[in-house]
Amino acid sequence: MTRQQLFEQILAKKSFLCVGLDSDLSKLPKHLLKYDDPIFEFNRQIIEATQDLCVAYKPNLAFYESQGWEGWRTLEKTMALIPDDIFTIADAKRGDIGNTSTQYAKAFFEKMNFDAVTVAPYMGEDSVKPFLDFEGKWVILLALTSNKGSFDFQFAAQENGEPLFEKVMKKAQTWGSPGNLMFVTGATHPEKFKEIRQIAPDNFLLVPGIGAQGGELEKVCEFGLNSQCGLLVNSSRGIIFASNGEDFAEKARAAALEIQGQMAQVLAKHFR
Amino acid sequence: MTRQQLFEQILAKKSFLCVGLDSDLSKLPKHLLKYDDPIFEFNRQIIEATQDLCVAYKPNLAFYESQGWEGWRTLEKTMALIPDDIFTIADAKRGDIGNTSTQYAKAFFEKMNFDAVTVAPYMGEDSVKPFLDFEGKWVILLALTSNKGSFDFQFAAQENGEPLFEKVMKKAQTWGSPGNLMFVTGATHPEKFKEIRQIAPDNFLLVPGIGAQGGELEKVCEFGLNSQCGLLVNSSRGIIFASNGEDFAEKARAAALEIQGQMAQVLAKHFR
Repeated sequence: MTRQQLFEQILAKKSFLCVGLDSDLSKLPKHLLKYDDPIFEFNRQIIEATQDLCVAYKPNLAFYESQGWEGWRTLEKTMALIPDDIFTIADAKRGDIGNTSTQYAKAFFEKMNFDAVTVAPYMGEDSVKPFLDFEGKWVILLALTSNKGSFDFQFAAQENGEPLFEKVMKKAQTWGSPGNLMFVTGATHPEKFKEIRQIAPDNFLLVPGIGAQGGELEKVCEFGLNSQCGLLVNSSRGIIFASNGEDFAEKARAAALEIQGQMAQVLAKHFR
Repeated sequence: MTRQQLFEQILAKKSFLCVGLDSDLSKLPKHLLKYDDPIFEFNRQIIEATQDLCVAYKPNLAFYESQGWEGWRTLEKTMALIPDDIFTIADAKRGDIGNTSTQYAKAFFEKMNFDAVTVAPYMGEDSVKPFLDFEGKWVILLALTSNKGSFDFQFAAQENGEPLFEKVMKKAQTWGSPGNLMFVTGATHPEKFKEIRQIAPDNFLLVPGIGAQGGELEKVCEFGLNSQCGLLVNSSRGIIFASNGEDFAEKARAAALEIQGQMAQVLAKHFR
């Protein structure tokens, strides 16, 4: 999917919501455990209930890998369900030396047909570039993550005084373009979005951390929006685990609808 | 496996060799393609041919994931073949927010029974600690990797002038101990091993980059060895792809034997 196509989806759906499919088996509604593949059935119903309200789905690989190879199979089956006009993100946080990153890229872009994969920057250029070499696919590079541990290294001042995450964002822009490179920037650091937009005015930002992690949509939008929206705001637990009863899909839809409603207002104001 | 048990294995086998199972389907000997699961058959023969010469195996997840869920199943079957007294490393370079890292830890430590997993430090403490919470298991944290991209951020001077990888090593030692924390330090930076040993005198170091990537064993050993050996030196392609003919297992054994022979000499000198 191109940047323009993604923007068109955002305008059409009045939404820049990404639903995180962190489908933790231990948190699934109990009545689903009777299915052969409970996580698949859960995802199927969540996708059916939310697909008109979001522009992206983001399965987090950890929740599939913890089920071993069967979990990977569940993920492949889930991917086959998601309509083509919805952007798909493998939240895998991969990154390795060049020939190895190419294999990861094949896994996510070719084998499973994801549009994007999250990549960790620590190993530098030759760990990121192999992903950028895939035509029509995207790297979403970790810049400023939503967790407490982001203070350990990402905020660490470099020799010139700038924090590491800014150095990462600047350097990465010499590797990719706003047409194939996004950044992860957590909603838990809304005070940083002004600087982030100065460094990367055109790149899409994938923003985790609203809802369960405490970030707020309004604060993110204040500086985060750009001329093509430029934001994919993720919610995982707040939507998919809104209820763990038989009404889970209905409640997930209601939670997604609430966020989408807020997004529609933001978009109407910004793009009137 | 404890640090003492690993050291005993090293002394018993006169080896601190780790064989990297980067079992790239496209590089396998052609006669194996007739098997239902060529990668499994390749691994089976490699393990049979080298298990008395190495103390660790390190499958690189990328080469399994590029085969989709079948690749994960191949990896699980491979793990079941490896004798219990051999240290197993999931070279996965994972790391995510706390509840997610716990799921990755379950995947590798519980579901597949690996002894260790490689972890990327960028997301900080709460992305690493969940792995350290598993009794008897190990984190191998990326510090100074063997690739060219290591110069992008790992060598970047911090405010106090120290490179980022040193900051990572110092901080991580407040999270784990030499009993559950190792570091990845590439053989392509032998001039750094003296400093590395000053920062982390007791931790094991996993050293990739000899052979195909150009690092040399002698240089790594000069400063890298400590009182419990403290080194696991990895070779992947140089061993497993020593030949791509029908004699591949025999040639892999010969390549492993050559390195093990050098290691035996080093150990005899160091621990006489």
